[in-house]
Amino acid sequence: MTNKAPTSSTSGDEFTHFDASGQAHMVDVGAKENTHRVAVARGKIRMQAQTFKMIAQGNSKKGDVLGIARIAAIMASKRTSDLIPLCHPLALTRVTVDFEQDPENLCIHCTAQVETRGQTGVEMEALTAVQVGLLTIYDMCKAVDRGMVMSDIRVMEKRGGKSGEWVADIDAPTIPTR
Amino acid sequence: MTNKAPTSSTSGDEFTHFDASGQAHMVDVGAKENTHRVAVARGKIRMQAQTFKMIAQGNSKKGDVLGIARIAAIMASKRTSDLIPLCHPLALTRVTVDFEQDPENLCIHCTAQVETRGQTGVEMEALTAVQVGLLTIYDMCKAVDRGMVMSDIRVMEKRGGKSGEWVADIDAPTIPTR
Amino acid sequence: MTNKAPTSSTSGDEFTHFDASGQAHMVDVGAKENTHRVAVARGKIRMQAQTFKMIAQGNSKKGDVLGIARIAAIMASKRTSDLIPLCHPLALTRVTVDFEQDPENLCIHCTAQVETRGQTGVEMEALTAVQVGLLTIYDMCKAVDRGMVMSDIRVMEKRGGKSGEWVADIDAPTIPTR
Amino acid sequence: MTNKAPTSSTSGDEFTHFDASGQAHMVDVGAKENTHRVAVARGKIRMQAQTFKMIAQGNSKKGDVLGIARIAAIMASKRTSDLIPLCHPLALTRVTVDFEQDPENLCIHCTAQVETRGQTGVEMEALTAVQVGLLTIYDMCKAVDRGMVMSDIRVMEKRGGKSGEWVADIDAPTIPTR
Amino acid sequence: MTNKAPTSSTSGDEFTHFDASGQAHMVDVGAKENTHRVAVARGKIRMQAQTFKMIAQGNSKKGDVLGIARIAAIMASKRTSDLIPLCHPLALTRVTVDFEQDPENLCIHCTAQVETRGQTGVEMEALTAVQVGLLTIYDMCKAVDRGMVMSDIRVMEKRGGKSGEWVADIDAPTIPTR
Amino acid sequence: MTNKAPTSSTSGDEFTHFDASGQAHMVDVGAKENTHRVAVARGKIRMQAQTFKMIAQGNSKKGDVLGIARIAAIMASKRTSDLIPLCHPLALTRVTVDFEQDPENLCIHCTAQVETRGQTGVEMEALTAVQVGLLTIYDMCKAVDRGMVMSDIRVMEKRGGKSGEWVADIDAPTIPTR
Repeated sequence: MTNKAPTSSTSGDEFTHFDASGQAHMVDVGAKENTHRVAVARGKIRMQAQTFKMIAQGNSKKGDVLGIARIAAIMASKRTSDLIPLCHPLALTRVTVDFEQDPENLCIHCTAQVETRGQTGVEMEALTAVQVGLLTIYDMCKAVDRGMVMSDIRVMEKRGGKSGEWVADIDAPTIPTR
Repeated sequence: MTNKAPTSSTSGDEFTHFDASGQAHMVDVGAKENTHRVAVARGKIRMQAQTFKMIAQGNSKKGDVLGIARIAAIMASKRTSDLIPLCHPLALTRVTVDFEQDPENLCIHCTAQVETRGQTGVEMEALTAVQVGLLTIYDMCKAVDRGMVMSDIRVMEKRGGKSGEWVADIDAPTIPTR
Repeated sequence: MTNKAPTSSTSGDEFTHFDASGQAHMVDVGAKENTHRVAVARGKIRMQAQTFKMIAQGNSKKGDVLGIARIAAIMASKRTSDLIPLCHPLALTRVTVDFEQDPENLCIHCTAQVETRGQTGVEMEALTAVQVGLLTIYDMCKAVDRGMVMSDIRVMEKRGGKSGEWVADIDAPTIPTR
Repeated sequence: MTNKAPTSSTSGDEFTHFDASGQAHMVDVGAKENTHRVAVARGKIRMQAQTFKMIAQGNSKKGDVLGIARIAAIMASKRTSDLIPLCHPLALTRVTVDFEQDPENLCIHCTAQVETRGQTGVEMEALTAVQVGLLTIYDMCKAVDRGMVMSDIRVMEKRGGKSGEWVADIDAPTIPTR
Repeated sequence: MTNKAPTSSTSGDEFTHFDASGQAHMVDVGAKENTHRVAVARGKIRMQAQTFKMIAQGNSKKGDVLGIARIAAIMASKRTSDLIPLCHPLALTRVTVDFEQDPENLCIHCTAQVETRGQTGVEMEALTAVQVGLLTIYDMCKAVDRGMVMSDIRVMEKRGGKSGEWVADIDAPTIPTR
Repeated sequence: MTNKAPTSSTSGDEFTHFDASGQAHMVDVGAKENTHRVAVARGKIRMQAQTFKMIAQGNSKKGDVLGIARIAAIMASKRTSDLIPLCHPLALTRVTVDFEQDPENLCIHCTAQVETRGQTGVEMEALTAVQVGLLTIYDMCKAVDRGMVMSDIRVMEKRGGKSGEWVADIDAPTIPTR
């Protein structure tokens, strides 16, 4: 049984998704503990003032854009390992998706929190939820505003696993000036 | 056979994904022409200098991050209608995904071009390709750089269909100052 | 090239999903015309009075069961050929799903209308939408009412294709007395 | 890390699939025990006498409708969390699907039993199996009998988990007189 | 709109799935004609005498291995573009799968014929059907015969499209002596 | 609760995927232990000399056929339970796929190793990875060599579970003379 090289290094100076010969693999997490793992991701979509107003007025009686985007985001988190080639399939135990309206910046912010009791983290599931939540907003509003832009999609914090707790340094300049 | 209201309005002052009573539906594109439709979407992921350098050195012999992200992006474009609730299934006729290294800003830019001969546009397929391309880069590098940020994901241009050609106004201030 | 037997008989006295030797196949629709095809399916879920009241009070501000069920139904119609073994994949051009509250009988009725320009009908897509719409209501309410029952799920009418228009005889006794 | 409100209430007077602010989420099952969980669901499809006779005569040599429907039902149970928005993905440990012919009422009854060792119940998986089993019968017979009707689809019993054993009260009048 | 290089060359001296710079893409088939396209693929699985006998005795009353493998093969052909990265999604118009028992060589042969009216060929769909048909036989018999071997999986013939008809040269030595 | 017959017999003289009445089911693995399970599968694709040479020259700069096939193989292993009707869904903990060039026989060999901590083995996941890895090579090279043949696809060894370790007898004549 071939077992070429230690592959799940977390030393931080090499990519774990490649083996010693540089080929991609789905890394071995079999020896990792089943711990409670949590990840929070966040991102936003910016739009025109009229589009923002139309979304803000929506509700289940007429035009509930955010309610639909929330469902799409939750469902997408369950498809993460189908989409991301080297991502492990995981039994998620909790997914929440919140949208926050930011009228000053004409943005809708999306925050997803995903949890599992498992052997790998759920950052990818949280990011996928955010991406698809924002994409669904784009889809539903594109007929009136094709120029919407999605930005600042990132992991905000994570907990659990060997690397423990991590919180993003949000004061770091994430979007450099062009 | 119920046919409550005209539903595929493109007048630009209402969301087409809701019917006259405000309920979500997959809009009727049956009367639209099968035309050659093209969409180009673009986005970027920003990272630490060391991460950028590691990706730049990758190749098929060791650590081909971008080659894998390209495949993930192309495959994801084919799953778009599975992910986006009101998106029509479409037979894509061409998908290309390019990555561009931007050492000055420590960014990888992803550009996806999608084409079809069909009854609806392919903006969502192009955006989904970009999102999953960037997500895959995040996944493969997250062990060394958890703080990567994805931004400026947008449609750059589209062609075909009733609304014809559209090009993004990229000089518009898409990311407002915080 | 084997072409054992005429397989797409619509004479009505044999199952078209089996070939002359009785083996299952996906029937040949390649010679059929691309016509405008429409199907309407319908079904209901019966529940306790308290459950019905809770659903009726729901909206996007709190507990929009029907809005979520509608999205699930629409998405499921796009997955029909993944679920039903001998169903042809189809590019749907329109999907609408409506829920109707029937307080007298403590039922929610679900009606799905699906359309395509294609070579086969869309009855299965409409039925799948109704089934998953009702299932989603069950899922969201099962913590308060595990005994809900789904019934009278059927095709109401169809149009297009060689067999033309068909309307269900709803006065026929569809649910025999036990 | 946001944790707005207790969300997995099972008090029976509110829907658990919404949080305190009324937004949909995938509820937290992370603290639940991994117990042996079983669910049995059941439903039927009614048809014309000739259709019933044709199905009854089927076998693997010619026209095995029920054998194919059984496979579709089993496969569908594995796709449940893809179809039902707020359903947790689960590793099923056993799925059985039985069909029973009821010549007196011209019905085929479908019973599905699903089991897992997991943190949530498998009622939805059992119901999905029944629904897709019946849908597949409809699909295979629709060329000869478009008016078939699916009814009485319900959970018959469940075991395991905090709420323990539950058995449907089948004498309750589930199908009200029209 | 970038359009770097002619990409759908069929000159036979280069791989069409890479662009001029060597990067993978889903090639442009948009200018190709919608023609009637047919592909036939074939393969076999070899087993122990006892296993062969058990399969041969199967029928819908007890152990219909081949009936189940046929359904799996047909369903898999519809998933081809989900599995093969650069494969175009296609609306298949016909799929048939046949098994042939070869008692002399203790093999089951699987032949799949797939058809479409589309812009690309269906060789991959036919091969995928054969592979999954054989895999399903393996799965169902592995408890009694883990050493089964699948071989000689190939395209036998294709028709339609620009390259027209092609028939495999089956007398060529396909399996070299070890 | 029906529990007709002991169903997970491993006595080796009957197919476990059928119950006592001969109907297919997904066998009960709920009582099995969660052990470390490993499976290795292998197969090859034979081609013309020119095709072999073109693949051998590929790399991430131009035409990385094997890199793409590896990703497809890994992703396919995660879809196994979607493709194989009676296969249990499993949380894989490790997947590796290697290609070996065999210039003497003009073959590319594919070896996949899959691991889990679970209640059933991962032979099917390893075989699916090999099949889709080889299919992807075929897809990418078919424009230059339609006659490629895939052979000798088999499980090489497995570990874990009640049946313990098993190694293929590779000296057995697996491909009988025609």
